[in-house]
Amino acid sequence: MSQPSSAISPTRAADFAEWYQQVVRAAELAEPSDVRGCMVIKPWGYGLWENIQHTLDGMFKATGHKNAYFPLFIPLSYLAKEAQHVEGFAKECAIVTHHRLEAGPDGALRPAPSSQLAEPLVIRPTSETIIGATYAKWVQSYRDLPILINQWANVVRWEMRPRLFLRTAEFLWQEGHTAHETEAEALEETEKMLGVYETFAREHLALPVYTGEKSAGERFPGAVQTLCIEAMVQDRKAVQAGTSHFLGQNFAKASDIKFLSRTNTQEFAWTTSWGVSTRLIGTLLMAHGDDDGAVLPPRVATSHVVILPVVPKEETRAAVLDAAYALAAKLRETRYHGDPLRVEVDARDVNGGAKNWEWIKKGAPLRVEIGPRDLEKGTVAIARRDRANKEKTFPANAEFVESVGAILDDIQATLLARATAHRDEHTVRIDTKEAFYAFFTAKNPDKPEVHGGFALAHWNGSPEVETQIKEDLKVTIRCIPTPGQIPGAEEPGRCVITGEPSTRRVLFAKSY
Amino acid sequence: MSQPSSAISPTRAADFAEWYQQVVRAAELAEPSDVRGCMVIKPWGYGLWENIQHTLDGMFKATGHKNAYFPLFIPLSYLAKEAQHVEGFAKECAIVTHHRLEAGPDGALRPAPSSQLAEPLVIRPTSETIIGATYAKWVQSYRDLPILINQWANVVRWEMRPRLFLRTAEFLWQEGHTAHETEAEALEETEKMLGVYETFAREHLALPVYTGEKSAGERFPGAVQTLCIEAMVQDRKAVQAGTSHFLGQNFAKASDIKFLSRTNTQEFAWTTSWGVSTRLIGTLLMAHGDDDGAVLPPRVATSHVVILPVVPKEETRAAVLDAAYALAAKLRETRYHGDPLRVEVDARDVNGGAKNWEWIKKGAPLRVEIGPRDLEKGTVAIARRDRANKEKTFPANAEFVESVGAILDDIQATLLARATAHRDEHTVRIDTKEAFYAFFTAKNPDKPEVHGGFALAHWNGSPEVETQIKEDLKVTIRCIPTPGQIPGAEEPGRCVITGEPSTRRVLFAKSY
Repeated sequence: MSQPSSAISPTRAADFAEWYQQVVRAAELAEPSDVRGCMVIKPWGYGLWENIQHTLDGMFKATGHKNAYFPLFIPLSYLAKEAQHVEGFAKECAIVTHHRLEAGPDGALRPAPSSQLAEPLVIRPTSETIIGATYAKWVQSYRDLPILINQWANVVRWEMRPRLFLRTAEFLWQEGHTAHETEAEALEETEKMLGVYETFAREHLALPVYTGEKSAGERFPGAVQTLCIEAMVQDRKAVQAGTSHFLGQNFAKASDIKFLSRTNTQEFAWTTSWGVSTRLIGTLLMAHGDDDGAVLPPRVATSHVVILPVVPKEETRAAVLDAAYALAAKLRETRYHGDPLRVEVDARDVNGGAKNWEWIKKGAPLRVEIGPRDLEKGTVAIARRDRANKEKTFPANAEFVESVGAILDDIQATLLARATAHRDEHTVRIDTKEAFYAFFTAKNPDKPEVHGGFALAHWNGSPEVETQIKEDLKVTIRCIPTPGQIPGAEEPGRCVITGEPSTRRVLFAKSY
Repeated sequence: MSQPSSAISPTRAADFAEWYQQVVRAAELAEPSDVRGCMVIKPWGYGLWENIQHTLDGMFKATGHKNAYFPLFIPLSYLAKEAQHVEGFAKECAIVTHHRLEAGPDGALRPAPSSQLAEPLVIRPTSETIIGATYAKWVQSYRDLPILINQWANVVRWEMRPRLFLRTAEFLWQEGHTAHETEAEALEETEKMLGVYETFAREHLALPVYTGEKSAGERFPGAVQTLCIEAMVQDRKAVQAGTSHFLGQNFAKASDIKFLSRTNTQEFAWTTSWGVSTRLIGTLLMAHGDDDGAVLPPRVATSHVVILPVVPKEETRAAVLDAAYALAAKLRETRYHGDPLRVEVDARDVNGGAKNWEWIKKGAPLRVEIGPRDLEKGTVAIARRDRANKEKTFPANAEFVESVGAILDDIQATLLARATAHRDEHTVRIDTKEAFYAFFTAKNPDKPEVHGGFALAHWNGSPEVETQIKEDLKVTIRCIPTPGQIPGAEEPGRCVITGEPSTRRVLFAKSY
């Protein structure tokens, strides 16, 4: 048996989907649970979510939002109120029908028949309806507006084909829900939060995303307008990484969020909602990982630096460990973008080579080896996760502490540059139906290789063409890109499928 | 009708239970939702939880714990494994039986019969069983131990008589779950986390709590030992504010958490769990509130300082608002115990007196008025929530910014001193059955007045006596106080009920 050339098997090129599962497992980020479709998020994965949460929460608060918490359960009748909403996606969900366990005739535990609820409760797949009912109570006059609230919560959508972080029955997210006096203000809010997501994705996740508006067919059920950020991952598929919805007065009408206006009339509020989820973790793994495992962008990495004491002989163990902990303490005193540097010392009694590979697979941005010879010379051995595994530098200890922030920023910039180059290379203008179909057709349909990308193509605006493309190729319109974002996208042309006139190009891709 | 003398009606003395409900409502902390037993936590209430979370999370991490996330759903069979556990409390819970909605014959939405789950899922009332099943997979050898993990989560226990923050169907909490190689290590962990809770309650919530061990009858179902912190609130009842359980090998045996020991034998791990919840918010409100509403301890207050611009004339409005925002910016630059000061400017176009009362009721530690005359003199008007409402001081603007941390610390110390004096005054040694029954018997049984307190009394150790006291008086043993905590409590004596010998006094009280 030949030595594998990389830590993760298969490689990205050989089988991207399987590579992804292996990365999640090898990096100890999450694992499937015994509850179908639900995952256990392990500390190394949850740390990513904590960092994402911490930063986004600060950005939400800086834009005037506050956090609150709304019930997990939604009465069935609430969902019935917003018919379009339920038609759209809320049907596959967890339904609570009983509230007590008892021993049945066979002695086994069962839901007590006497505890059946008069009205079943649905576990929130999203909270529009229950928050709408609450806002209806809070809003009386224009003086009560705007309401600018966010919630960090777990939600459930009963997924039949779960995939860790990307699609699970239960997942973690944030959902902002705002209510406004005017349409213009709500539209401004919708765009502002899309901007927050775009900035966060670029600066913290090192993900260059396209922003734009969803076509009517891809819109959030019940929304007037859905804006989104779309990321490209390494198999050239799109991931919808965040959405911001302008809900018009639809939910306000369904929930009766009315207010006495400045002109003394009763008006319905204008509402928005916006969210990102643990899916961001799946996205960044697929965007930055390599054939050796996860590669975490420093700004969100669970730990920035992992210190690996090298202990060849028992007599130097104490001195090496002391030096490792002293270095960790020094590093933790330094701040990286405002927060203390996150440092781990791996002093486990495990073979050094195996330990090093573990941290490569986990994607720690910087690995620092420190051994007896380093103590003598006052140096450390540094390996960056964005470089070849064996490439090391040997700065003086103090010099490393001094420069650690700059090194991390450089890694962050490298990841963003790589992802941007990859995205740009695979964002292609396509002008014929033939080329369009060729672009999205795998050479080996039984086991599709990495192919395709983002196609910028003209479209006649009809749902029929959208449906046909989806059926033929499993390709959807990811967004109608924000004007000015992609040079020339707003020039008129002819629909790539029908040849009919089109005012602008839109972005097509296969997606997760 | 005479003018009420305080903002909250009824007063604490008149009807403590109703006073509490009114405080929660008037302070805009939370409200009941349309879902029976579930609450909506409003921003002013959720801010308290965020601050509690932030501080406790730091304390957990400083003691070596990491966060993770486990599924919301627990398969019914998991609960069946730990029979004592289910016997104890897990019966009243939300049970998911279906996973899809459909339109029924009458057109109304209903759980689709075809989507019935083969095995019902229970919403976690606590996660011991599902985490146990996960740890069983993670632990192979003693090298995998200890596992030191915490989870921030929502849990559900179907409460029939909900009370906001104290007892709701869904509530927020943290649950630490650890697994260890030895009994001694697990016991040490159990005590360590109790210590974290005691410190947090005292230093941050200004709650002096008694620590101790629960009697067998009051223990967490399935635990070998339950340690707790017990707070006294102003109606002299106890609140169990946090618990730390030594689970022995019970859950390890039920979940099969086994490991290869250092001596090459298969052994069961020793586990612990520990938690506090949004109940802490109810506890601090009942401990510190007064007849004008909530009084928030500065260390956890949603906002530390509220600035109220005073705008008697339109021509000075701009200057006053500018000064208010400038002061807020200055204050936010200062740090209070390591975090930026939390400052709010209430510039709403609302009557000044009404606005002032709102913030009194909300319990903001410091209210700062700033008006045209203050601008001229370079001063501000400061009112402390721990002092009389009309008592104000008029420091120079810069002097206030300089001293704000010291003032907040002084308020914090005052609240702790008051709560300690109240607790000590109402912690009473009782040596006769007559006195014991008199202490816990209200003069007006139809509408019990504030009475009783914590009785330090001898007990023969029998469950029968415990049950009799509970049935007669609704009084329970809150804890067997940690030795050394209450002078003389460990001296032997005679059971207050039976006259039989007793080795030490225990703490009895009515409780929430």
